[in-house]
Order: sequence, then C-alpha cells, then structure tokens
Amino acid sequence: MTIQMTLYFFSFSLDLMARLQLFYNFQLVQNDFNGLIPAQAMLAESGRILWMGSLKNQPRTKGKPTRVNLKNQKIFPSFIECHTHTIFAGSRADEFELRNAGMTYSEIAKRGGGILSTVRETRKSPLKNLLKISQDRVNRFLRQGVSTLEIKSGYGLDLPSEIKMLEVARKLSGPRIVTTYLGAHAKPVEFKNFDEYLKDIVQNTLPVLKKKKLTNRVDIFVEKNFFEKSAAQKYLSAFQKQGFDVTIHANQLSQSGGAELAMELKARSADHVIHLSPEAISNFGKSKVVTVLLPAADLYMKCDYPPARKLIDAGATVALATDFNPGTSPTQDLMLVGLLARLKMGMTLPEVFKAYTINAARALGIESEEGSLEVGKSANFICTDADLNDFFYSAGTMPQHRLFIAGKEIKIKDKLSR
Amino acid sequence: MTIQMTLYFFSFSLDLMARLQLFYNFQLVQNDFNGLIPAQAMLAESGRILWMGSLKNQPRTKGKPTRVNLKNQKIFPSFIECHTHTIFAGSRADEFELRNAGMTYSEIAKRGGGILSTVRETRKSPLKNLLKISQDRVNRFLRQGVSTLEIKSGYGLDLPSEIKMLEVARKLSGPRIVTTYLGAHAKPVEFKNFDEYLKDIVQNTLPVLKKKKLTNRVDIFVEKNFFEKSAAQKYLSAFQKQGFDVTIHANQLSQSGGAELAMELKARSADHVIHLSPEAISNFGKSKVVTVLLPAADLYMKCDYPPARKLIDAGATVALATDFNPGTSPTQDLMLVGLLARLKMGMTLPEVFKAYTINAARALGIESEEGSLEVGKSANFICTDADLNDFFYSAGTMPQHRLFIAGKEIKIKDKLSR
Repeated sequence: MTIQMTLYFFSFSLDLMARLQLFYNFQLVQNDFNGLIPAQAMLAESGRILWMGSLKNQPRTKGKPTRVNLKNQKIFPSFIECHTHTIFAGSRADEFELRNAGMTYSEIAKRGGGILSTVRETRKSPLKNLLKISQDRVNRFLRQGVSTLEIKSGYGLDLPSEIKMLEVARKLSGPRIVTTYLGAHAKPVEFKNFDEYLKDIVQNTLPVLKKKKLTNRVDIFVEKNFFEKSAAQKYLSAFQKQGFDVTIHANQLSQSGGAELAMELKARSADHVIHLSPEAISNFGKSKVVTVLLPAADLYMKCDYPPARKLIDAGATVALATDFNPGTSPTQDLMLVGLLARLKMGMTLPEVFKAYTINAARALGIESEEGSLEVGKSANFICTDADLNDFFYSAGTMPQHRLFIAGKEIKIKDKLSR
Repeated sequence: MTIQMTLYFFSFSLDLMARLQLFYNFQLVQNDFNGLIPAQAMLAESGRILWMGSLKNQPRTKGKPTRVNLKNQKIFPSFIECHTHTIFAGSRADEFELRNAGMTYSEIAKRGGGILSTVRETRKSPLKNLLKISQDRVNRFLRQGVSTLEIKSGYGLDLPSEIKMLEVARKLSGPRIVTTYLGAHAKPVEFKNFDEYLKDIVQNTLPVLKKKKLTNRVDIFVEKNFFEKSAAQKYLSAFQKQGFDVTIHANQLSQSGGAELAMELKARSADHVIHLSPEAISNFGKSKVVTVLLPAADLYMKCDYPPARKLIDAGATVALATDFNPGTSPTQDLMLVGLLARLKMGMTLPEVFKAYTINAARALGIESEEGSLEVGKSANFICTDADLNDFFYSAGTMPQHRLFIAGKEIKIKDKLSR
C-alpha cells in the first residue's frame, strides 16, 4: 500500500511540468454513446485535452509529445461515482441477516445496531486505520474505471470525527475525490432533537469546515420524523451563504419535500427520489437539479425503484451511483447498478453510460472539467477492446479495460481477491 | 495462461505419490454453518481428509506430514457451482438491450439472435479458441472459491460440436469439472420436430458419449411446446439404461411436468422450478431430488423467484447456482446469487452456504466426496479472516480468502480486470 501511494504522489508531482501526450489510433465513443468515430487522436497537455481529431490534422506543438498508440481500442470518459459513503469503520453484515429474518430497523437500533453503530465504530477508529480500510475500497472503485469519486462524511456526527472523515478523504489516493459534508445524516445521541443539532452544526461546525477548506458541498437526509423540510431549508441556506453547493437525500422513504427543496434551492442534485409526485417529475424536467438514482440501495432495501424512465422522458438529468455504505447498500458494483437501471428502471444503455459520466459530473458541478472527452477537460478515459454492450450487463464483472486519469494509466497491484 | 495450466498439471501429477499434510490452527465452521469450533486440525493424505480434531489428539502417521499453519483463520468447504453453461462462443450482450427495449424473444430469434446464434458461434469456434475463452471464465469462478464446477454441453446440438464442448470441458484446468450432456437444450435447425431430434440423439449420440466416456450425466429442457414431458420421459430412460444420471431444466416457464418427471425418474436434480404446485413442493420434501435454484437468471428474465422458503420448509434439498450462460444469466457472481436468495427467496445465510456446498454436491451426486469437511472427503476448502456474514452480502465482492483444492492452495495470476 505504501509503495502504491508513493507512486501516485510521484505521478501527481510530475503534473507540475507541462506534459504533452498524443493518444492516437483509437475509436472514439460518441458523446451520446450511440456510435463510434474511427481512427481518432487526442493531444493532452498536463492531463488536459488540447485537441481532438484525425491524426493527419494534428496541430503543431512547442514540445514533442509522448505518443501513445491505443491500438484501435474504444475510448470513452471514465466513470464518476457521485454518491457514496466510502469512509466508515465496522461492518453491519450481521444486521443484514436479522433484517432478512424480519427484524425491524428500530429493533436492530435497540440492540445497538443501525447507523449509530457505524458512528460508534467510526468515531473510535484512528485516522490511519480509517484511511487504510477506505483506500482498499477506493481501489475497488478504481479497478472498475472510476476516475472521480464522491465521498460523504456523516458517520462522525461530532466535530472531530466529521473532520477526521474529511481528512481521510483528502489523503486517499487514486481517483479525484469530491467530498461532501453530511453531518445531517442522523441525529447523534448527544442531541435531543434534530433542529437543535442542525443549529449546533451551523454555529460550530460550518466555520471550521470553511476555515479548513475540507469541502464546499453539504448534504442532508430530508425525511418525515428526521430532518424535516423546513429545518433543512434554513440549514442549507446557511451553508449556501458561505458558498457551499447543496445536495439532498430526498424522497427516499416518502414524499418528504426534499425533492422540492432541492429545486427551490437550486441544489446540484436530489438523490434517491423514489417517491415523486407527477408535478415533481415534471419540475425536474425543467430544472438543472440532477436526479441521482441509487438502485443497488433499492435492491437491498426491498423498496420501489425510482421513476427513471418518467424523469428522463420529462427532460430531467439522471445520474446513477452505488450509494456504497455499510447499511443500506453494501456493494461497490457499478455493473450491477447499471444492470438494475436497465432491468428495473427502463433506462437504455446509452442513458446508463451518460448517467455514469456527464450527468454524474453535473451532479458534482464539475461538468466543465470532466464527464466527457472534449477540449479543455481532463483526459480521463477508459480504453477497451470490449463492446459497449458488455458494460452494465454482467453483474460482478467489469469488462477488461485500462483506466487513464489525466492522461496517465492507473495500475493497481494489491491483494484484493477479485 | 500456458504457464498457469502447466502448473496445474504438474500439481495434479504429484497426487500420485502419497502426500501427507497437517493443517492446524484454524477455526472450523460447523457443518450447519451455525457456529465455529476453535483450534482445530486436519490431516490429509493425497488431498483426502484422513482425520480431523484437536491438534493434541493428532494420530500417528507413517510419514512426516507437511505442516500448514492456517493462523486461526476460519475454514469451510469450498463452493460447488452445480449448474452452468460456461462453454460457449460469441456474445448476446446486444440482445439484452433489445429485450429491455421490449423486443420479444421470437422477434430476436427472427433477426438471427437467441440461443441458435450461440449455437452458430460455438459450432464454428475451433476447440483451441473455445478452450481459451472458457478457461478465463473458469478462472473467474475459481477466484470466487469454486472448487467444483458443473458445465453443460448444449450449444453444439450436433454430434461433433457437442463432443467438442465436452472435450473442452475435459481440458479445462483448476476446479474439478463435472460435465453434463444437454443436447436437448433446443432443437437444431436441421430437425423438423423435437421428438425426431431426441430419437436421433438416442440412436447416434448416446453410443458415442458412452464410448468416449465424456460424461455420465444427461439434462433436458422440459417445457410446453419444446421438449414435452412424455418425450423427455422416454429420452431420459434410454440414457438411464446406459447408466447416466439425470437432471432436468424443469418448470422454469410453466408447470411443465418437468419437476414431476424428475421425481418419477429419481433424477439428481430438478433445476429452476419456479412454477410448482403445492403438491410438487410437498413431494420434493419427501424426495431426494435436489431443487437447484437459479435466482440470477430470474433477475435477468424479470420473472418470479422460485419458492425456496416453501421448499426448505417442506424438507426439500435446495442448492443454488449462477446458471451462467450468454442468454438468460450472463453473470458469474456467486455473491449476487446468494444475496438474491436471501433478499428475494427468504433463505437464511446458513441455508445459502449449504446450498452452495453440500446440497450442490448432492445435486451432482458427489456428496460422498465433496461438499463438507469430513473424513474421507477431499480437502477442498476456503480459508478466510472474513466473517461468515461477509459472504453472500456484497454483490460483486467475494471476501478475501484462499482456496485449497485437494489440500493445495490455488493461485491464479491472469489479466482479469477484477
């Protein structure tokens, strides 16, 4: 692990010099994922795309680029995982058996289980340990072609532990990490009511987040009997005044008002959105708020799948993600997520690809830098001999491929069994 | 690949000498998967278990055993995949998109797709090529702790191609391969009707299978408007007279009579069994015929899941498998199969473990040799630090482990991306 991390840091330090690369002899997957443009080439400087086109039209450059022959493979933008809870300690695999045997979530919570058990474990886990177990998970995403990974805090629920989670995120190597503060994930035992906890965050945590520049994104779990819409509105507005981008866990269990709040506040995204009124679906179609759908969580939770087809038909922007977390979505399998979107949510294969690339970039507000292969964006791409039809098809099996981040091929050597 | 296969053959040749091994310092998972026995030891001779117990009671042996310290890891019998179609050429990933877009199977067949497209590709694939692509798939199973793998023919549908498939199976390395003749998978274009094709098999293929000793198992897809129950009855009886074991693709699409036929003929297993009458469920409870359930196929086919809970409660023996095939179950993910059994079929975790070990062995008629760790059986086991709860839990992620087949640790080094 140490050796591998060192290599990453070394490769990033090289970025400080102008680094010219000419990738050539590849088939470019079109931006709509509906076709291929043969015999393409791409010029990148320090990992950013300078030019794309036919090799014979290659522009002149000051230096001599390193030439990379992609051997007629297909290339397309690498995957962006835009909703995860990758940093946590402990396991709740034992609860899964209890839930399947019919035990309710509140019975499990009474036995010391549920989200607060993850909070207990995460609070007491030293940063170094949390970093080690999280890096293994990050590598598992990396291995699936993920070049950008969103990670939320929210298993600390007190100032030092939330900061610890965000600091772990900063130390992770491999993909670009986008962090989100999710203090409002659940109510910690130290607080009597939800509103009191939110007020405390705004007063005591927000200034520290701002000062330490650990994240510029805030998320909240809006649900009846948890963080309710009106409290969430005040809370998120306080963060917006400090320049934070907003995302909301919305309408997962009921029509909680979270989806509407996301549109009112011009949030980057509304996530889960299973329970939507026809008006909300129509409004997402007119809004720039991305709907982030998380079908693996729906599989584990045995609940309905979100109305992806209706959202897309209404004109909404749909992204997909694993929601990887130890409670409701303990899987990192992107292929399963896309497969469920196709099988259960009526999404076409090109829609799934867009949901995992450009639309996921929009959910994170980084669509000017990533999510498609265009001049000015990062040279983040997947290179493969596989057919596009082989993706999001075989659960558990990512087709053979190579991942390039900022023009550099990523190689992971670790002990993961698969 | 060549190097790896050489290593396997080399290791098998060592088996000819008596090879004494003492595995010690492990926690033995109990046969019912409901608990652990600490500080256990196991003596194996040429890969077969001679003795199990506490190290202090170790019996005297003629030679000096090689000692293998398992460092307090848990061990349990390795997995047996008892229903797959691993050998095939071509891909039908493109059809998946068409089916999801609403195209019917018969429309796809008219366009040249469906099972007969796999038959076309498999017939024209040279043995060497078929072996190479199949070995990659076998390695993917091996990597998940599969020590024994059933593989059916059935994409040749003519004598030379079916023989070619069974010969490929014989040449595969890694796990023990159990082959099954499934000529009655579909009707080849050369034949006008189903009965005529079955008669031809009995007359022309059965003697060759017998002579070449390529398999002693026969399977048939029993369904209305395909191979009907009465024709299947005659066909399977002809094979039984030649000493073949019987298994049936039964009641997948309807109450086709296949399940009842399996019990009448004392088949090893009835597979799929989604559509079962209450009588059939009750009869499986009194029968030794194993019901092999294939929930990944049910996920891909968007159909109902089989009544696992009712079968188990009635006393039936339930096994699980991927049904890996290019049409209706293009996944090799054992963790997903067990997860679906837990989420969708009401199976407990110990039931899933048994379904993938001893009950799968029963489905293949090898329960006296494999499927549990007992004196006289093969020392085929998984060794892990993981908790049992970590298995059949995270789709796409098999917990870190080591696989031992006949006492030898299996190491795979290949280029698979996951």
